[in-house]
Amino acid sequence: MRFIRYKTGHDAPRYGWIYEEKVGPIDGSIFDEYRRLEATLPLSAVTLLAPVVPSKIICVGRNFADHAREQGLDVPEIPLLFLKPPSAVIGPGAAIEIPPQSQLVEHEAELAIVIGREGRWIGMDKASDYILGYTAANDVTARDLQRRDGQWTRGKGFDTFCPLGPWIDTELDPADALISCRVDGKIRQMASTRDMVFTVQQLVAFISSIMRLLPGDVILTGTPAGIGPLEPGNNVEVTIEGIGSLTNPVIESLTVS
Amino acid sequence: MRFIRYKTGHDAPRYGWIYEEKVGPIDGSIFDEYRRLEATLPLSAVTLLAPVVPSKIICVGRNFADHAREQGLDVPEIPLLFLKPPSAVIGPGAAIEIPPQSQLVEHEAELAIVIGREGRWIGMDKASDYILGYTAANDVTARDLQRRDGQWTRGKGFDTFCPLGPWIDTELDPADALISCRVDGKIRQMASTRDMVFTVQQLVAFISSIMRLLPGDVILTGTPAGIGPLEPGNNVEVTIEGIGSLTNPVIESLTVS
Repeated sequence: MRFIRYKTGHDAPRYGWIYEEKVGPIDGSIFDEYRRLEATLPLSAVTLLAPVVPSKIICVGRNFADHAREQGLDVPEIPLLFLKPPSAVIGPGAAIEIPPQSQLVEHEAELAIVIGREGRWIGMDKASDYILGYTAANDVTARDLQRRDGQWTRGKGFDTFCPLGPWIDTELDPADALISCRVDGKIRQMASTRDMVFTVQQLVAFISSIMRLLPGDVILTGTPAGIGPLEPGNNVEVTIEGIGSLTNPVIESLTVS
Repeated sequence: MRFIRYKTGHDAPRYGWIYEEKVGPIDGSIFDEYRRLEATLPLSAVTLLAPVVPSKIICVGRNFADHAREQGLDVPEIPLLFLKPPSAVIGPGAAIEIPPQSQLVEHEAELAIVIGREGRWIGMDKASDYILGYTAANDVTARDLQRRDGQWTRGKGFDTFCPLGPWIDTELDPADALISCRVDGKIRQMASTRDMVFTVQQLVAFISSIMRLLPGDVILTGTPAGIGPLEPGNNVEVTIEGIGSLTNPVIESLTVS
């Protein structure tokens, strides 16, 4: 099944589901009890939003050996974690804004895990029970600031630096799905999740040994090789085989609120 | 004024205010329109909770020169940011749990800013308009893991590693307030906010040039020298002059959910 968050006209955002290119509302919570109402609205008639509003976004650094190498760095022995602030989240079609502070903003295509229920000290064999589904993510990074600061919070924490979507797919098998990234139609990144250093199950177990995972929390599982710059005017598309594509235009940020 | 979040019996948490050691409920939102109802309940009759539920917790590293020195590090030229996950927040009196993964968990007494309204690109001269008030915080840190990982998310992100409280004080002048930390009554840290490298106003301006600040967001402004270990059985007390004391017992964590 595919869950979306969407808007129509001036209505408040709500959850829905997709059936044959049609959208139906969800009555209740996708993280608890819910009912699928009839899917009658064409997908093209709604504005898709980020499919989830996470209380935290936990990211994994250098989870593909070839990406670690392209950065001149080793693969970590244990998952290397960092956080992106929820204020960075945008949905499909929303603009990634290049901040005036950075001269080098790059894309990082990633598979995102969406947590379905609360858990702590989750065993690897039980991890799948805590996962609602998967979506695509772009771990947008101001590479120059990331390198300068040491800590990655500024470089990865700007508003609009965490596109998520287009929907949560509950059927994906994360063992061998293709992750790709295109900028203006040109392939920049492509790799399979089978090349991850740590699997989805290992990541859920590791992270939940540190912090309680809550429904809607998102884990970004790391990017493969091929990262590269984004410029105003670009369109960047992250595709996960079996899920779909998350596309965002890139614009220059204005320094006003 | 002093705002609290509190519980009585099995009732849901709610916001209140304190008047002469008595608690009155708040009708409405402390971040918007509200009415103070009569303060009749003795403060001792309620359970204080963390005074705010932040969407993000932005922390500042090495914002006191003497603390940077004790770590053998330079004072950063621009504020060094990192995030703690909201799942780490606990209130006054709640236990800090020493996780089995760390052999060295340390206290870091800090002044915390509580954001009152949404803002981006906030000027230094306007920063105070966006601050609802201040509370005390303990940026509990697994020092061994912080050093091993490079990124600080694991070392600083464990559940219970962000005690906040006891209340939000809206009157504090942050220019010269004493921050102190006692473990089992013995002074470990003591310094004035006037020794901060970056002021509260500079931090709000800098952080809001990166990410949108939302009502309830919390900024931890950095710890002075004197950090030291916490052991099960300790009581750790962070005091901010003009606000009050945040006290938490320390226990060993259980590795079960």
